[in-house]
Amino acid sequence: MNLYDVIVIGGGVSGSSAAMYSARFNLNVLVFAEEPGGLITTTHLVENYPGIKSIGGFEMGQTFMEHAQETGAKFKYSRVDSVEKFENEDGVMRFRVMKGDEEFIAKTVVLATGTKHKHLGVPGEEEYANKGVSYCALCDGAFFRGKTACVVGGGDTAAIDAKILRQFVEKVYVLVRKDHMRAEPTNLKKLEDDDKVEIMYETEVESIQGDGEKVTHLILKDGSEMKMDAVFVAIGWNVKNELALQIGADVNDRGEVVVTREARTNIPGFYAAGDVTDAEFKQAIIGAAEGVYASVQAYNYITDGKD
Amino acid sequence: MNLYDVIVIGGGVSGSSAAMYSARFNLNVLVFAEEPGGLITTTHLVENYPGIKSIGGFEMGQTFMEHAQETGAKFKYSRVDSVEKFENEDGVMRFRVMKGDEEFIAKTVVLATGTKHKHLGVPGEEEYANKGVSYCALCDGAFFRGKTACVVGGGDTAAIDAKILRQFVEKVYVLVRKDHMRAEPTNLKKLEDDDKVEIMYETEVESIQGDGEKVTHLILKDGSEMKMDAVFVAIGWNVKNELALQIGADVNDRGEVVVTREARTNIPGFYAAGDVTDAEFKQAIIGAAEGVYASVQAYNYITDGKD
Repeated sequence: MNLYDVIVIGGGVSGSSAAMYSARFNLNVLVFAEEPGGLITTTHLVENYPGIKSIGGFEMGQTFMEHAQETGAKFKYSRVDSVEKFENEDGVMRFRVMKGDEEFIAKTVVLATGTKHKHLGVPGEEEYANKGVSYCALCDGAFFRGKTACVVGGGDTAAIDAKILRQFVEKVYVLVRKDHMRAEPTNLKKLEDDDKVEIMYETEVESIQGDGEKVTHLILKDGSEMKMDAVFVAIGWNVKNELALQIGADVNDRGEVVVTREARTNIPGFYAAGDVTDAEFKQAIIGAAEGVYASVQAYNYITDGKD
Repeated sequence: MNLYDVIVIGGGVSGSSAAMYSARFNLNVLVFAEEPGGLITTTHLVENYPGIKSIGGFEMGQTFMEHAQETGAKFKYSRVDSVEKFENEDGVMRFRVMKGDEEFIAKTVVLATGTKHKHLGVPGEEEYANKGVSYCALCDGAFFRGKTACVVGGGDTAAIDAKILRQFVEKVYVLVRKDHMRAEPTNLKKLEDDDKVEIMYETEVESIQGDGEKVTHLILKDGSEMKMDAVFVAIGWNVKNELALQIGADVNDRGEVVVTREARTNIPGFYAAGDVTDAEFKQAIIGAAEGVYASVQAYNYITDGKD
């Protein structure tokens, strides 16, 4: 039987961190990495992970996985179809993780499935990803010092992204599909009062254009052209919480798994880390720390039965 | 006037992380680093910081400081004597940080002062400090090549210290007060399998004896004598919470500053990160994440007045 101390679902920064620390605890760890390296691999350069001054997003994802593997964690590069809790014949609680009709049993599970950014779905978006198109103002804003950028979105994330970007760029346009923004009033007010920021309502992107190397301009739905160096898409993300919902973990109104500071969910032995959680701030360093917390909880739960 | 957006007190992993992120928010940051690089610099090798597979402790402390400096944070390599909150002439709350009679004013403060090593409090300990008594195996182990050393303590630090010392000395005794060690299983197993190392449980030091120049032997609580050249004390830390107490931050019964998951203390604009906080698990990665959370709070507080 495939019995593991810890099954980590998700092979990004948070999952790999949980796996590395679990392996250091001499636990028998299996990671399911459907997207090896996780969402960070789609980022051009990461310069805000404390202790690593600058690293490519892809390399960063790889490094975290290798760190876990070299410490002893095993990886499977596939998705998980279901996870459930059950009592085995000795009356002990276990988790059953299914991948197709393959069954894996675990004493504990760390859910680190993360999120996916919502995409605009317009021509040029995929082609110019990391060549001017970004889904993270905080990660990539500093690469556009002195340039012209836009944020596409009408929510609070769009407002916050604009506020972050205005520190770096010459001009920020906020392109809002509706005739108003659903941003916090204080954030909205600041944008309205800011000469560097211009909010354009009832404005939709038709396509993102470039010179093959980088974004150069936008075509809007009304046919007009806008010169543009960077497009920050901030229309939200989807939490990959299907397995959490399946097993009955509590989620908040954004669908994020509710965890304590130490990565505990409402289900003993089932922990969550990284962008899938309700952490206030979705950053690699926060997810890595949550992964480490999750591994400590798993270790305590396995050795002491304490959660 | 010396007005800063953020003053970080402490130049270790957590303080440097807070400073780096604050600088990324384009905040004006000053770090007081009394012990540049912090306590991690006394560690031989760090192999459990997610994303950095292996790095010397000294190099790690340096790297974190450089990361902050290269992002724009300023450092002063000195202690802070006091910190207080006051209302300025415009009715705005500020922090006054004093170093001797030099005054620094800040909109927010991040406390990241960490911990210091605990002492045994037995006769001979102070007298023979640096004459055979040490709190840092990595720093001082090499001075005792071919000699007999002991580590006093039952935690993971004691286990790691023994592993470091066995490279230099003829024999290492680990003196553990309880009947078991609370070390990481992988570390404990290595000691148990090591002929150079002997773990003595239920063993306490009564006094440290010497010839006036150097340590020569120990007297144990059971009255027995042990020939000994070096005593490495690894019984934990005291939280450096003096400034927190001064300003009225809440601390728990271990003296650790009580913070929320997002590094908030009970005092608006005053945050804490790293080993000085009540985090369940004192590790570099946890402190780094707390430092980042603190910088986000500082940024929100400065821009929105929200805490």
